This record gives sequence, structure tokens and C-alpha cells, in this order.
Amino acid sequence: MDLVWICVIVGFVGAGVVAYFARYVLRQDQGSKKIRKISSAIKEGGLAFIYREYRTLGIVVAIIAIILAVVPDLGWRMSVAFLFGAICSMGAGYAGMSMALRANGRTCAAAQQSLNQGLRVSFRGGAVMGLTVVSVGLIGLSILYFAWHDLPDFQFLYIIPAYGTGASLVALFSRVGGGIFTKGADAGADLVGKVEAGIPEDDPRNAAVIADNVGDNVGDVCGMGADLLESYVETVIATMTLTTVGVAVAPWVTNLFHGFSAEAALQAAWWLPMLIMAGGIVASIIGCFLVRVGEKIDMSALLAALRRGTLGATILTAVFGFLVIRFLGANLALFWAMLAGLVAGALIGESTNYFTSYAFKPTQEISEASTTGAGATVIRGFATGLMSTWPPIVLIAIAIVVAFQFGNFYGVALACVGMLSTLGVTLATDAYGPIADNAGGITTQAGLPDEVRERTDALDSLGNTTAATGKGFAIGAAAMNSLGLILAFAMAVGIVTVSEGKLILPEALSLLSVPVIVGIFIGAVMPPIFCAMTMKSVGVTTSAIIEEVRRQWREIKGLMEGTAKPEYGKCVDIATRISLRQMLLPSIMTIVAPVIVGVVLGKYALAGFLIGALVTGFILAVTLNNAGGAWDNAKKWIEAGKFGGKGSDAHKASVVGDTVGDPMKDTAGPSLNIMLKLMSVISLMLAPVIMHFDGLI
Amino acid sequence: MDLVWICVIVGFVGAGVVAYFARYVLRQDQGSKKIRKISSAIKEGGLAFIYREYRTLGIVVAIIAIILAVVPDLGWRMSVAFLFGAICSMGAGYAGMSMALRANGRTCAAAQQSLNQGLRVSFRGGAVMGLTVVSVGLIGLSILYFAWHDLPDFQFLYIIPAYGTGASLVALFSRVGGGIFTKGADAGADLVGKVEAGIPEDDPRNAAVIADNVGDNVGDVCGMGADLLESYVETVIATMTLTTVGVAVAPWVTNLFHGFSAEAALQAAWWLPMLIMAGGIVASIIGCFLVRVGEKIDMSALLAALRRGTLGATILTAVFGFLVIRFLGANLALFWAMLAGLVAGALIGESTNYFTSYAFKPTQEISEASTTGAGATVIRGFATGLMSTWPPIVLIAIAIVVAFQFGNFYGVALACVGMLSTLGVTLATDAYGPIADNAGGITTQAGLPDEVRERTDALDSLGNTTAATGKGFAIGAAAMNSLGLILAFAMAVGIVTVSEGKLILPEALSLLSVPVIVGIFIGAVMPPIFCAMTMKSVGVTTSAIIEEVRRQWREIKGLMEGTAKPEYGKCVDIATRISLRQMLLPSIMTIVAPVIVGVVLGKYALAGFLIGALVTGFILAVTLNNAGGAWDNAKKWIEAGKFGGKGSDAHKASVVGDTVGDPMKDTAGPSLNIMLKLMSVISLMLAPVIMHFDGLI
Repeated sequence: MDLVWICVIVGFVGAGVVAYFARYVLRQDQGSKKIRKISSAIKEGGLAFIYREYRTLGIVVAIIAIILAVVPDLGWRMSVAFLFGAICSMGAGYAGMSMALRANGRTCAAAQQSLNQGLRVSFRGGAVMGLTVVSVGLIGLSILYFAWHDLPDFQFLYIIPAYGTGASLVALFSRVGGGIFTKGADAGADLVGKVEAGIPEDDPRNAAVIADNVGDNVGDVCGMGADLLESYVETVIATMTLTTVGVAVAPWVTNLFHGFSAEAALQAAWWLPMLIMAGGIVASIIGCFLVRVGEKIDMSALLAALRRGTLGATILTAVFGFLVIRFLGANLALFWAMLAGLVAGALIGESTNYFTSYAFKPTQEISEASTTGAGATVIRGFATGLMSTWPPIVLIAIAIVVAFQFGNFYGVALACVGMLSTLGVTLATDAYGPIADNAGGITTQAGLPDEVRERTDALDSLGNTTAATGKGFAIGAAAMNSLGLILAFAMAVGIVTVSEGKLILPEALSLLSVPVIVGIFIGAVMPPIFCAMTMKSVGVTTSAIIEEVRRQWREIKGLMEGTAKPEYGKCVDIATRISLRQMLLPSIMTIVAPVIVGVVLGKYALAGFLIGALVTGFILAVTLNNAGGAWDNAKKWIEAGKFGGKGSDAHKASVVGDTVGDPMKDTAGPSLNIMLKLMSVISLMLAPVIMHFDGLI
Repeated sequence: MDLVWICVIVGFVGAGVVAYFARYVLRQDQGSKKIRKISSAIKEGGLAFIYREYRTLGIVVAIIAIILAVVPDLGWRMSVAFLFGAICSMGAGYAGMSMALRANGRTCAAAQQSLNQGLRVSFRGGAVMGLTVVSVGLIGLSILYFAWHDLPDFQFLYIIPAYGTGASLVALFSRVGGGIFTKGADAGADLVGKVEAGIPEDDPRNAAVIADNVGDNVGDVCGMGADLLESYVETVIATMTLTTVGVAVAPWVTNLFHGFSAEAALQAAWWLPMLIMAGGIVASIIGCFLVRVGEKIDMSALLAALRRGTLGATILTAVFGFLVIRFLGANLALFWAMLAGLVAGALIGESTNYFTSYAFKPTQEISEASTTGAGATVIRGFATGLMSTWPPIVLIAIAIVVAFQFGNFYGVALACVGMLSTLGVTLATDAYGPIADNAGGITTQAGLPDEVRERTDALDSLGNTTAATGKGFAIGAAAMNSLGLILAFAMAVGIVTVSEGKLILPEALSLLSVPVIVGIFIGAVMPPIFCAMTMKSVGVTTSAIIEEVRRQWREIKGLMEGTAKPEYGKCVDIATRISLRQMLLPSIMTIVAPVIVGVVLGKYALAGFLIGALVTGFILAVTLNNAGGAWDNAKKWIEAGKFGGKGSDAHKASVVGDTVGDPMKDTAGPSLNIMLKLMSVISLMLAPVIMHFDGLI
């Protein structure tokens, strides 16, 4: 039997659990009229954003699909795969987002009953996103497999990168557009409220508050989901692609599946990553059911509940992975390769937590520095961000070395499969965050009793921790994934060849060949430019929103007195339009740059370009994410009463730090993940074309 | 005749001009008693720092010299060369610094006469540093050349990197230690004055003001000089080393010096960089005399005066370079290689100017962003810094491609020689800055009339512009230089070999071999860690100084009333001790890391490591330098009356930006230059040892 059927079955089981969770959430009490009203305003805004984004996206996707179909070396199958990838990602994003938009008010209502009930509703809302992504990803890959894996000359391997590229493009729009939206709206709402009118953050007279709530969803749910769906499918794609070199089965595949015929070895090597993912989905489902907590409001109890879920899933995945490798009859070395990735992913999450949680010294020191002013806060936080880059880099380096020793390039890709296999549950804990955050906002706006606010605050605070960890995981996965894609690109483009069972790395790919050096240099400058653009875009969106809120205060009579209502929709609309427009330039640059480098400087320079971008992008993303997270929590630490508490000079300084960190950690940093992966997967997809270009230098 | 005699003669001509300028400055009026008193306090502090630094340095230098002497594959000659390099750098640093410390008060006095006189004294004071560095550099290299160039088996080429390493080590101490000192003292003086006591920046009751003035000298004169002396000599060293591959004359040398015997070609290839440098010194001397200005106080006139000097020197150097190449009978292609570097260096300076001067949009936009708060200031400035990375990277990439086309690896190194050939005059414009800055401080402290303050302000403001441009040039030179050293390392360590006149780049050096990838990753994380450490050190120093000033206010009776004097020396002493202590950890890391990587991961991984560090280090340094410069000038733009002017909310926000930028642009950013070069030159120096290590993975 073709074992990929197992993946299909598991995928549908996952979908079934999604349906169960969704039904559970939708059956919950929607809360009071006030809650429903606010929640439905957020829902409308969120859906309006996603509709408009998908419309723009649709045009871009259509254009690229047409190009793929007509370029000689590519063809219609690639075009179809690309479309399919885009549709899968849009579908998963829509499902997760619309569930999150329905879970926020219900979490609010549930928190009126008990903390445990609040956690359950919000977590299950998030789990819908997590399990949808992995189920859709696995089913999509299975469909492609059944459709085309029998095509001659490994054509299948040249088609599937297009599926990844489709998903990648949607992720780009969601992460970058959503990121600009969310922080533009957030900063706009904050600034205009505090600076202009002296009113608190979630005051209903501020027309930008709904846009702010919408932003949490489009950035952290839709964007994060699309990002990780991309990593998920592209990891499998990279692993499959690394089973061949040019038109031959890779030597390591025949070694690792010893005693198999070349054909059987290849088939098993294709099944393996998909089956590990299937095991991971089962483990994630079990993990999701392990998340529960007593009534004590205690961060450590809440954190322990989520930990139980992710840790349980991790252990189960390792066990399933071992069984799968055993069952397929592959070399057990592959288990260690997979485990290296699984462990590295978990430890990267831990190191992120160390550098960004106020339970530890680095963040507490930022709070302390705030007592000497905003400048010191910013410097100390930035230094923390820079310092925090070493554990992820070292962990990934170790994972690469271990995985390579045990499984060569295929092992490196498999390590990444290991890292992402528990995505179902880790993404659930991520997507839970913005739901809880929204619930907190609604609680305030609806004026619910303090007791409820306390519960939603606890949930929200937990969400912040998981968000930081999730971002660390996402960039780690993106880096590993990108490396896998670059290796696959080198094989596909014919840079690397096999002769008598030995891999031949050409001189032109030497680290010291000039095209490679120039490629590395130019690639290295892409992430900083990209970050500069997106960070500036946040500023543009913020300004536009401030202007709109001011206009409403000026023109709507009785608004400040509370007798008239602001036009919330207008703010959402403006943020949507501007963020989508601002997103275009960095997006086009990301899509076009590898093509230009490949054509002008050639395929060797392109390999250097991708590595250069990977290195600076990874360092920059970790720095921005962790500095941002640390500033946020340093502020919270002061708000918890340390160094003078709320309202002190230290607090004011820490607010500046938080303002600086917001666009770094929620826009620029996470967007880099997509940039790295997208440039790599586009190069891989276009390998049949780029292989003809040796470069002009 | 051995043409290196020309270099010796030119070196001594340079020294003669130094003596002439020094005599000129020393003969100037020292000013009123008050000026002399302040100036001598600064001098004492500066000399105290340098003595203590050199004492610590002496110990480290001695230890390393002993190690070099006893390690089998290295030997006593290397040890001597290392010591000689260290002594040359210390001597040049001491000379430049002691002149700067004597020129500051005299500039003050000269500015009482006229602007032109003020410019002349301060610029000639700076020119002493500039011309000392190039003369010492060239004479030192010539001495080594005469001593050992005849040794068999190209032993000479294995010895000279030790000379560079000696200079590099001194540069590390001066740049990092000086950088921590200067910004620690600056921030301490500012914070304690403004926040604690509400007294202005240069108020004599503040015990830290003298330390602040001392800091300008130890950081920007001594540190900058040692940095560029290092680049200067290492560039020549890299070029010379790139004339051979292992034990054979490099194929490109025989091609470029066509019709020569192998021996004659090699000799000419060794002479060429030294002769170009000699031409550059002559051009720089002429350039220095071209700097003069009328009485109109006008930034553009002052800038034009300096421009005339540097541009004149650049054109002359190109002419001299052409003549030298013609005279030697080398291929004229080498002229284009050299020119590529010369032009790239000049354009990098221009791009830095565009991104950091308030005459242009990027900095003005930061001022504008300040109207929405400190957070916006910081974000916009950081985005500007990130964006500013592309011109230098692209310019260097183009220079590499052009130089390689015309002269292979030797051409790439020669491009760097071109870039640094005009150092005499560019460094003079740099070192002039802190003298003018000091003069401004003394003018205020001595209570001189507004008219004088206006003149010294104009000189100071010009100094800020040249400082930013100089930093851009320094990091560009460091990057090119580091690349040359890495290439030389690859040849020396036997990674790259020659077979039948063709270069063989081994598979193990492939961009996709696992040791190289891991090396790149680990190398890439070094600069961020290094920056995090140095930025944190500034904070530690600042805190200690604040504490000391507070102590004096508490314990010295009558200090706040103006009836007693603070103990200025104590603050200098504390800043000295702490900055030297804080400097140790990052320094040791820089020295030890390449050794560990080379031994544990092997020579291929070390090549990757150096490239990885080069890429992220370059990006990070440009970002930090330019963001810092832009924040500084954005503040100045507001102080010039824009967006509400001094005292407005926008101004307060811009001050936060400036505070953030200070340790970035004056400590962390410039220190990275040294880090990159030092790691590369240490690897090159240790090549005879590291060549035996293939790595454990």
C-alpha cells in the first residue's frame, strides 16, 4: 500500500478535531450585548482586511501563475501547484482567523465563569488554527503526491517547490501587510490617545481602538499561521528534493536505505518526512487535550499547562518518528538527525524565553536601566537582543553538524522536519495569544468586573510569553528551512553533481570565488533594507491613523463628550489600505531580487546571495524579536511595581523602549522569516531556468 | 636600486612635515590662564589614560610575543615583528594624542583672532596625527622589508602579518577601551548634570566634564589613529602576501608583470603597494596645504576647504599610482584595480554623508519623527541606519568585481591599497574633529565671548561631519582589508593551491560544505555578541561616573555653591580603570575565537567563520555608525530651530535618540572594525600552525 494514505487519513483526523474544537467554541455563550457588539466590530474589521488583502493577493498570484505557465522550462503543472499552494494557505489563514475572531468575545464570557473555562475556550480557538495549518499542509502535499509522483525524471520534485512558493507568497502578504497593519494601528491608537487627549489605551472614544484589536488578529493569527504553514510544507518539500541530485538518486539515500532498490529507497525517502509529520499531528492532537488548568490564577500554573501540551507532543513525536523509521527499515541514524532538529527547536524556544521573560536577569536589567532614562532602556534592550543571537545560532549549527553526520544533506532537511513536526500544538499556543489579548481588550471596553479582567489579564500575559517563544521558534524553523531549500536549490540547479556515488562540489561554488563573495555581500544587505522599509511603513500607517482620529474628534460633534460614536470602520479601512500599499515595495523586492541575481550574476552567486541573506536575516530577526520582547516585558516588570512602578520616570522610559520594540518584534522581525524562505523557494522553483545562467562576472 | 628606499625617503619627508606642523602648533599662543588651566587638566587626564592603557597593553603584548617565540611553526622573527608593530602603533598613537591635547587650547586662542586661524591650528594639529600614522606605517614596513625580504622560501611573507597583528592589538585596546571611556564619560557627565542637578553640559561644578573632554581625545584621536594605522599596514601586508600561493609565485603575478622573470615579478609586486602608499603620502602632504578658508563663517565654505584637500590628494594619488605602475612596467590593468578602491572609498564617504548630515532628507525625517515622540525618533533613526548599508556594500562589491577582473586576488588587495592611499589627509580631517570639539568645550568653560564660541561651534560642527564620513571610510577600509587578509589566509594556510599555473579551490571550501556553513554561522554571531558587550560596558562606566560625581557633591562642601572645586582627576581615573577592565572580555574573545575555531573546526571552517563575521560585522558597523550619526544631527537640526527648536518636546525626543546613538557610533560600531581585521590577521599570522588542522567535523 502507498503509505501516503496514512497521511491523508491523519490529515482528515486532524480536520475532524478542528471541527470538534470549532463546534465547541461556537457553542459557547457569546456574552452580553456589549461584548457581542465590540466583538462583532472587530470581526467585521478583520474580515474586511482579509477580503481586501486576498483581492490584491489574487491579482499577484494570477500574474505569477500565468508567468509560470508560459515560461518554457516550467509549465502548467507548476502553475497549478503554485495556485494550489496559494489557495491552501489562504484557506487555512481564513479558517484560523475567522475562528479567532469568534473566540475572543466568547473567551471573555467564559472568563466570567472561571479561569479554566477561559483558557479552554481561547486555547481551543487557537488550536483550530494550529491543527488547520498542519492538516491542510499535509493533505495538500498528499494530493500533489498522488497526482504527480509517478511522472518520469523526478518531475514531481520540480513541481512541488511551486506549491511552497504559492504558500510563501500568501505568507508574505499576511506577515508583512498584517505586521504593518497591526503595529501601525497599535501605535496610532496609543499615541493619539495618550498624547493628544490624555485618554487611556482602550477608551471607546478613540476611533483607532477597534483597528488595534483587529491588528492583533491579522498580524499574530493570520500572519503567524501563514508563516508556519509555509515552513511546514517547504520543509517536507526540501527533504523530498534532497533525495536526488540532478537526474540521479542521491548517494546518501541509497546509503541510508541500505538494501533497498534505488526506486524503493527513493520512495521510502519521500514517505519518511510525510509520515513523521503525520506522527506529529497525532502527537499534537493529544498534546492539545493535555492543556488544562485548575482555578488558581497563577502564571506558573498556566505556563505549566501549556508546557504539558507541547512537551507531551514533543516526546510522542520522537517516539512516533522512531517507530516510523524502524517500520520503513531506514537507517536509525535518521532518527538522531530528526531528533537533533526537534531538540534544537525546543531549546531555541527556551533561550528566547530566557532573554525576553521578566522572570530572568536580562529583562530585569533593562527595567533597571530605565531608571537612568529612555536612552539607557533602548541601549540595554538592543544589547540584549544582540546578545540573544548566540544560543539559536549555536543550536542550529550543532543541529546541522549532528544531522549531517547522521544523514548527510537529507539528514539536515530531516532535522528541520523534526523541528516542525510538533507545529500543530506549538502553533495552537501561539494563536491562543491574540485571542486572549483581544478578550482582555473587550473586557475593558465592555467594563466587566475586575475579577474577570484579572483572569483575562492572566491569560493575556501568558499569551505574551508564548508569543515570544513562538517567534523564536518561527525564525529558527525559517532558518533551518531556508538552509534546506538552498541545499535543494544547489542540487536542482546542477551546481552540485554526483559522480560514481560521490558528490562533486564545483570550484565555482568556492567560498572564495568572486561571484560567491559578491553574492554573499549583496544577499547580506537585503534583510536590513527590507527591515528599514517595513519599519518605516509602520510609521506611515501610524501617522495616517492619528490624522483620521484627529479628524473625527474635530468633525464629529459630541464625540469627546461621549454622546456620539466614532467611526471605527474608517480607521480599519485606512490601516488596511495603507498597509497593503506599503507592503508592495518590499514584497516585490523579495520576489524579484533572487531572479535578477540569478540571471545577472549567475547561479553560483545566487547560492552565495541566499546564504548571505540567511545569515544576516537570521541575526537581525532574532535581535529584533528578542529586543522587542524584552522591552515589552521590562515595561511589564516595572508595571508590576518594580523600580517605582506605573507612572514613575522609569516607567515612562520603559514605555519608550516598548514603543521602539513594537514594530521590530511584530513587523520587521517576523517578516524576515518569510523573506528568507521566499527567496530560497523561488530560487528552487526557478532552478530549471536559472541553471542556464552562469553569470556575467 | 631597491625602490623601497623611495618609501623610506618619503616616510622621512612625511615625518619632517609632521615636525613642521607640530612646531607651528606649539608656537601658537596658549591663551589665557583659564584656557591653559582647563587644557592642562585635559592633557593630564588624557596622558594618564594612555599611560595606564599602555601598561596593561604591555603585559598582553609581552605574553603574546613570548607565545609566538616559543610555538614551533612561528619563531622569534615573528615575535620581533609583532613587538615592532605594537611599538609603532603605540608610538603613533602617543604622538597624535599628545599633539591633539596641546592643540585644543591653542585652537581656542587662535579662534579669538579669526576663524581661518582657528581652522589652521586645529587642522594642523590633526594633520600631525594623520601624517604620523602614514609615515610610521610606511617606514616600519620598509624596515621589515630590508631586514627580512631576502629570507628563503618567502619567509618574509609569513613574518609580516605579525607586524600587522601587533598594530591590531594596540588598535583593539585603543578603540575599544577608548570607546568605552569616551561614551561612558560623555553619558555620565550629561546625565548627572541634566538629570541630577539641572546644570548645563559643560558646567565646571560637574566633576565629569574633564573626563568627557579627555574621552574625545582617547576615543576619536588615539582610537581612530590606531584603527587606521592597522588598516594601512595590513593592506600592504595582504597585498604582498597575495603574491604567492603556498610556496609558489602566484599565477596572476606572473601574468600581471608579463615579461619579467618570476623573481623580478615578485619583487615588483612587493614594491608596488609600498610605492603607491608613498605616492599617497606625497599627495596627502600637498592636500594638507590646500586646506584654508576665508573669514566668512559658513559651513559650506569650511567643508569646501577640507574637500579641496581630500579631493586634491585623491586626484594626485591616482596620477602617482598610474606613474608608478607605468614606471614599474606592470600591466596597466592594475591601475584600474587600484582606482576602483580609491573611488569606492571616496563614494562610501559621500553616502555616509548623505545618510547622516542634516542637509539631506534621511536625517531631516528623523527630526520630523521626533515630533511624535522618542519612540518614533529611535525607530526612524534605526531604519535609516539599516537602509544606509546598501551603498557601501554595493560599492565594495563593485570594487571587488572590477579589481578582480583586472588583477585577480592581487587586484582586490590593491584596490584596498588605493582606498587607503590618501589616508594621510583623510585621517587629518578626522583627527581635527575632536580638537575642535575640545576647543568648543574649553571656550564654554572658560567663558569666552559669544563671537569666539560661534567660531569654535562652526569648527566643531564641521568636525562632526568629517567624523561621520571618516567612520564610513574606516569601516569600508576595514571590510576591504579584512577580505584581503582572508584571501591571504586561504593562500597561506594551504587551502588554496596552484597546479600548472591554475588556482585550485578545494571542495572542502565549498559554500555548501558543512564546516564552511557552520563556520559562517558561528562567525556571523561574533559581531553582535561583541557589540552587546561593549554597549553594556558603556552603561557600567556611566553608572560608576554618576556615582562618583554624586559622591563629590555630597562630600565636598561648597561645591554646588561654586566655592570649592571638584576632583576632576578622580573621574578620569575611574573611567580609565573601568573602561580598561570592561574591555578585556570582548578583546580576549576576539583573540581567542579564531584560534579555537581553527583548531576545533579546522581551517575550512575558519575561512567561513571569517567571512561570516565580515558580513554581519560590516552590516552592523555601518548601521550603528550611521544611525548614531543621523540621530546626533537630527538633534542638531532641531536645535537649529526646526520643529519647535531647543526645549520643545521634539527636542527632548531627539536627545533620547542621540543618547541611544552615542555608544553605537562611538563605541560599538568603530570597535567592530578592529574586531574584523584582528580576527583575520591573527588567522593569517597563525596560518603555519592552523594549516595542520582539518577540523573535527
